Amino acid sequence: MRGPLHSAPVGTISLAIGEPSFDTPNVIRDAMLKALASGATHYCDQFGLMPLRETIASDERRSRRRSITVDDVLVTHGASAGLAAVILGVVNPGDVVAIEDPTYSLYADLVAFAGGTVTTFRRNQNGELDADSLHDAVRSARLVIVCQPSNPTGAILSSSDWGLIVEATRINQSLILSDEAYASLIYDGNAFTSILDVPGLETRGILCQTFSKKFAMTGWRVGYLLGPSELIAAASVVHRTFNGSVNTAVQYAAITAISDAQPDASRMLMEYAERRVVMEDALSSVSGLEARTPAGAFYFHCRYADSRDSTGLSRAATAAGVLVRPGREFGPAGEGHIRLSFAAAPEDIWEGIRRLSSVLDMSTERE
Amino acid sequence: MRGPLHSAPVGTISLAIGEPSFDTPNVIRDAMLKALASGATHYCDQFGLMPLRETIASDERRSRRRSITVDDVLVTHGASAGLAAVILGVVNPGDVVAIEDPTYSLYADLVAFAGGTVTTFRRNQNGELDADSLHDAVRSARLVIVCQPSNPTGAILSSSDWGLIVEATRINQSLILSDEAYASLIYDGNAFTSILDVPGLETRGILCQTFSKKFAMTGWRVGYLLGPSELIAAASVVHRTFNGSVNTAVQYAAITAISDAQPDASRMLMEYAERRVVMEDALSSVSGLEARTPAGAFYFHCRYADSRDSTGLSRAATAAGVLVRPGREFGPAGEGHIRLSFAAAPEDIWEGIRRLSSVLDMSTERE
Repeated sequence: MRGPLHSAPVGTISLAIGEPSFDTPNVIRDAMLKALASGATHYCDQFGLMPLRETIASDERRSRRRSITVDDVLVTHGASAGLAAVILGVVNPGDVVAIEDPTYSLYADLVAFAGGTVTTFRRNQNGELDADSLHDAVRSARLVIVCQPSNPTGAILSSSDWGLIVEATRINQSLILSDEAYASLIYDGNAFTSILDVPGLETRGILCQTFSKKFAMTGWRVGYLLGPSELIAAASVVHRTFNGSVNTAVQYAAITAISDAQPDASRMLMEYAERRVVMEDALSSVSGLEARTPAGAFYFHCRYADSRDSTGLSRAATAAGVLVRPGREFGPAGEGHIRLSFAAAPEDIWEGIRRLSSVLDMSTERE
Repeated sequence: MRGPLHSAPVGTISLAIGEPSFDTPNVIRDAMLKALASGATHYCDQFGLMPLRETIASDERRSRRRSITVDDVLVTHGASAGLAAVILGVVNPGDVVAIEDPTYSLYADLVAFAGGTVTTFRRNQNGELDADSLHDAVRSARLVIVCQPSNPTGAILSSSDWGLIVEATRINQSLILSDEAYASLIYDGNAFTSILDVPGLETRGILCQTFSKKFAMTGWRVGYLLGPSELIAAASVVHRTFNGSVNTAVQYAAITAISDAQPDASRMLMEYAERRVVMEDALSSVSGLEARTPAGAFYFHCRYADSRDSTGLSRAATAAGVLVRPGREFGPAGEGHIRLSFAAAPEDIWEGIRRLSSVLDMSTERE
């Protein structure tokens, strides 16, 4: 998610931000300085800097306990370019791509660029994947894209959700792309199952990862794809054609992020966990806003009591001094919701939700 | 051009390099450090950092003496992503795109991604655009792409070449994209006419520029598009979908490049000018290699006396300890040529050409 990029009046509170409020940890910035000083100012390999690919492969191997080599890793210009590389690399005109509704809007945009058609699946009232809608959506899908923890809902895929996906796509052998940008932000000790840990997806599952959220590096633009080497090779053709190589010194900094900035990531996670409680408390104190507490990421996907659509309500909120994202941005099923980010200072969370509640007409007549 | 990315045996000389041999000037690296220290680690506007867009607009306005505003400027992930943004933004499946033969291979790759068809035009023996081939190629072209100074030939477009292009595309009002990555590297006081200075192209001409060559910033990945705001807006949709925003701190460094690193750029230009003479001398001392002295960039496009095709000869050269680029990479008309880079140390230029001459069989039987 890209943050709100228009300027707002002074005093406006943003609960729309899609990035960490923290600056990048110093240890990572220092690594960048060192790389630049040592002359890392030239092009590098278009698959990514070999020491970074090795570090990523080794790090994921340790977490995943499966065989991963550097040939399975492509360094990308953030998750955006990684998603683009996979989608443009494997989706041909007319191909069907199944995504959740609601979900991060970039997937459908990229599928449209590739000339593909989107089908959607949903979750049921218990927050589990709805088996019927999933089966319908993936019936002829070339690719299925999941986002977990979800932007905007914070939901994660349980083992049984994954089981449904594997089962539903077994006959077609659809490719599965899992955007796990927020995977480091999991609360309450919830179990998180990366696509890399799902049996049956070894040859058709691709992870899209980024340094942006975990290490507060959104402005650095570095991420990676990890999957079967043939799929990585296909994605690399797109990435090198559209992007060329990735910033060399940034890749040295990314190595340091993995090796030396885990304590910083843990510290930020604890801070987000506290803010999540703050937002939960703030929401419970007002009428007309309700949300399932997210398992991960840093958003509440709130259902609201108001007669306006989410775009109209967001506009009214802006006028009242608080920025939010309209749920409609994330798909038809996002309508009737707004997305509130708790990657904001605690006092801003309280005041932002107070302002928001003040504009609700408490009517739900549109439903 | 991306440099050779495979590793070669120790002692191998590279005349294949597509980037400055210089590290990025210190003043630019220092600006990056300062930006990082001040917290420029977050997402920025997807059109580019406003102060950078203002600096670019102001800098180009001063050189060009025409009206240029920030709405005409899109900051891109290097020239690669700029080219991709224009080509994917304006070329629809089935559209014709005219390019020179030979030219930088990325254009045709991107046109293929967009589903377009390539037609080609050539220069005559005097190095001028061939009017007939140009008229044929652009007849139904949606877009014409020029590269000047040319990679691989170093040729630039004279006023009369530009006049031919304007005339040939007047009826269709084809869009013209000019890749001027090497525009800062012009020798012997040759007159260089940027697309921004061509009368008649104000509403359909787009400049693609990069900080890579002029400021030795290939590893930084920052460039820009400059053209009519409607075309820039179309390109921006592609760029933000495929790339998101560009590294924020890098954009601060790019501001400093424009404002404070012109003396460094001049120093590097003088150095390249000397190396060009070295390569000219080295070539004149051996038989079987001949080339027009390039007006710009840092390549000689050499015709060779040997029975092998350019791929075969390049392979033989590698075995003899010198890397070169086969002319065929740049199009059919590049066959029978190799591209030699003088962005290499003078002693390497001499020794590289000596090694190259040693593998020539001096036969030209394939022609």
